[in-house]
Amino acid sequence: MRRAPARGAYDRGTIDAILDEGLVAHLAFAVDGQPYVIPTLHARVGDTVYFHGSAASRMIRTLTASGPACLTVTLLDAMVLARSAFHHSMNYRSVVVLGQARAVADPAELLVALEAFTEKLVPGRWDEVRRPNTKELKGTRALAMSLDEASAKARSGPPVDDEEDLELDVWAGLIPLGLAAGDPVADPKLPYGITPSAVVTGWKPGGR
Amino acid sequence: MRRAPARGAYDRGTIDAILDEGLVAHLAFAVDGQPYVIPTLHARVGDTVYFHGSAASRMIRTLTASGPACLTVTLLDAMVLARSAFHHSMNYRSVVVLGQARAVADPAELLVALEAFTEKLVPGRWDEVRRPNTKELKGTRALAMSLDEASAKARSGPPVDDEEDLELDVWAGLIPLGLAAGDPVADPKLPYGITPSAVVTGWKPGGR
Repeated sequence: MRRAPARGAYDRGTIDAILDEGLVAHLAFAVDGQPYVIPTLHARVGDTVYFHGSAASRMIRTLTASGPACLTVTLLDAMVLARSAFHHSMNYRSVVVLGQARAVADPAELLVALEAFTEKLVPGRWDEVRRPNTKELKGTRALAMSLDEASAKARSGPPVDDEEDLELDVWAGLIPLGLAAGDPVADPKLPYGITPSAVVTGWKPGGR
Repeated sequence: MRRAPARGAYDRGTIDAILDEGLVAHLAFAVDGQPYVIPTLHARVGDTVYFHGSAASRMIRTLTASGPACLTVTLLDAMVLARSAFHHSMNYRSVVVLGQARAVADPAELLVALEAFTEKLVPGRWDEVRRPNTKELKGTRALAMSLDEASAKARSGPPVDDEEDLELDVWAGLIPLGLAAGDPVADPKLPYGITPSAVVTGWKPGGR
């Protein structure tokens, strides 16, 4: 994305809000000098961001054995349509977390992470579902990173065109973007008569 | 994200469709062993994926001087609500491109990349806007990666609960997710009487 005046560092409140609103994180780690970046579910609890480790066992081994990682969460807010091709851009908010990833081993902390993942997806869901049993906790791969080295960047506002382009007969402005939810789709195996709760039907993106 | 039966490798058509639908890519590179992942605008042209390099000059220097990179595009399709906390997940499609990033130096190729970025945001927009001039082409930082080492992963379908949980009195299913566009917002500097074209007002996410 292009440099923009509004970019820069932000306070922890801003960082937390971006982490909390984003439904997916991108995690980077390096194996023998080759960087990889994979999507993962994440959830913040205080000064810690947890993420799911089950997607890539190689990732787990690498991250926990050695080497720093980077976790990035990006929200798209708008497409920025300028009068010139060159000044087209995106409005976005992003957070980058640097540091060492730590494997969560303590069952009590694993439970905290699983609750955070579940509540992250749908606030209130934790109280509706069957809680993890001992076997599931043993099978849960969660990693944690501290927010000590977290920073935010953002672009906001209208396009920034060159002065001499402002009178061109070209519409300029923003197309706002946001995540939207469709109507819930029941599992085909759902027994007859079970309907989604208000927790499910009332879910809205960014409303957390 | 959790392992799921539907995950795996896909053909180039699937890879291209994911790259073309995604509005943002996450690019990973390593500096002195520390991986970084940053969001960037990308656009595919045939067997090449271009991405914007202006956001991080350090990135440019690093990527073009040495070392492999990784570019990942992720689309969120649904939240997967299981009867147990443990089996909650996301339906998604993602592409990972590995390889060396190449700085685009040829002005003709830079023009191709800028057209691709512009058309990627809003198909048809290139014909409406002022085209890049020589100075802008010189100021454009674009990088290219080959799709030779590209792969796709996805999860789709309903939640996969344990057999013994199927009769629980808990709703299970999907909440579909997608990007949505709001009404265009005019630049405050727009002269009176210039209205957005059908290219702008008709824009839909994923319709590319």
